[in-house]
Amino acid sequence: MLPDEINKLIEEFSSLPSIGPRQATRLVFHLVRSGKQKNSTLASAIWNLEKLKPCANCFFPHTDKGLFCSICANPQRRKNTICIVEKETDLISLEKTSKFKGVYFILGEQSDDNPQNLKLKFLKERIKKDLGGQAEEIIIAINPTSEGDLRALYLKEELKNFAKKITRLGRGLPTGGDIEFADEETLAQALENRS
Amino acid sequence: MLPDEINKLIEEFSSLPSIGPRQATRLVFHLVRSGKQKNSTLASAIWNLEKLKPCANCFFPHTDKGLFCSICANPQRRKNTICIVEKETDLISLEKTSKFKGVYFILGEQSDDNPQNLKLKFLKERIKKDLGGQAEEIIIAINPTSEGDLRALYLKEELKNFAKKITRLGRGLPTGGDIEFADEETLAQALENRS
Repeated sequence: MLPDEINKLIEEFSSLPSIGPRQATRLVFHLVRSGKQKNSTLASAIWNLEKLKPCANCFFPHTDKGLFCSICANPQRRKNTICIVEKETDLISLEKTSKFKGVYFILGEQSDDNPQNLKLKFLKERIKKDLGGQAEEIIIAINPTSEGDLRALYLKEELKNFAKKITRLGRGLPTGGDIEFADEETLAQALENRS
Repeated sequence: MLPDEINKLIEEFSSLPSIGPRQATRLVFHLVRSGKQKNSTLASAIWNLEKLKPCANCFFPHTDKGLFCSICANPQRRKNTICIVEKETDLISLEKTSKFKGVYFILGEQSDDNPQNLKLKFLKERIKKDLGGQAEEIIIAINPTSEGDLRALYLKEELKNFAKKITRLGRGLPTGGDIEFADEETLAQALENRS
């Protein structure tokens, strides 16, 4: 009963992560009510993503003149300390702490169609070419889940000859966390990593 | 630190209902990774909403040739039974039951900038012009919340001379509901409306 135009956009929205068909439907009718100007702004903003290119070093999208994003192009950042993240939003969260002075590498999330091996090859080549074969440190910033732990182990093995030190982010109680409600694994890690 | 193109689209997405800045950010990076073809499909789908026009009878968006949507243009539907809904998605839910043979009227949600009075005036004019001044029945299909109840009361008063009968959707236990956990108001209504 719905016009094709509406069904088509519901379908497109539903194909995005964490948007179900109900939310997609609500969004579409919201846009129908919003009118031409609002919608053309949104459509243009989507079009404009075209201007982005991946950084030739870390794959973070940018529109700077050169090949590199602003982090990789910054001479203040230590190129021999590489933080591997799965996705851009993880990089943003880490960057917000202002604690990390190295550079990143976006590996992508683990999935059947993610060319992980190509990206790893690329990282190894980059370390060979730019850092003489060995980075000072590689930080594997992958979620502390059982899947993430497995992936981190694999990366550690793959990269063992490419860095003097390979680390992961610290484990323990999150700030504001409650000992009573922490799971056993977290508490065990918190005990082990006490400081 | 983010490119303008990314910030702009995060802002646009965040302005949509039920999308927060975190989900907006995740969506944008998803689109960045999706590439040109996927994104131009999405942008065009948004552009194409332009082709929709509101039904001259009920305000439901459509692209049919005439002035009316497929429901209002259907000679099988009883024009003298009007179901007032707040939003298009409510209409869709009711229509899925296949139980309603009348037509709808989309009043819009209650808000400071919603021209409720204009729409009510429009409805009254329509009843005068098409139904000789009185509909057989007006069903007020507005959410059974305290706000909704208030609005329904107002509509009932406003429309009392424009229909032989004004009703609301039945109240009681939802199918699959649990008596033990039903709130008092629902149970009271269920007792009152027992069948």
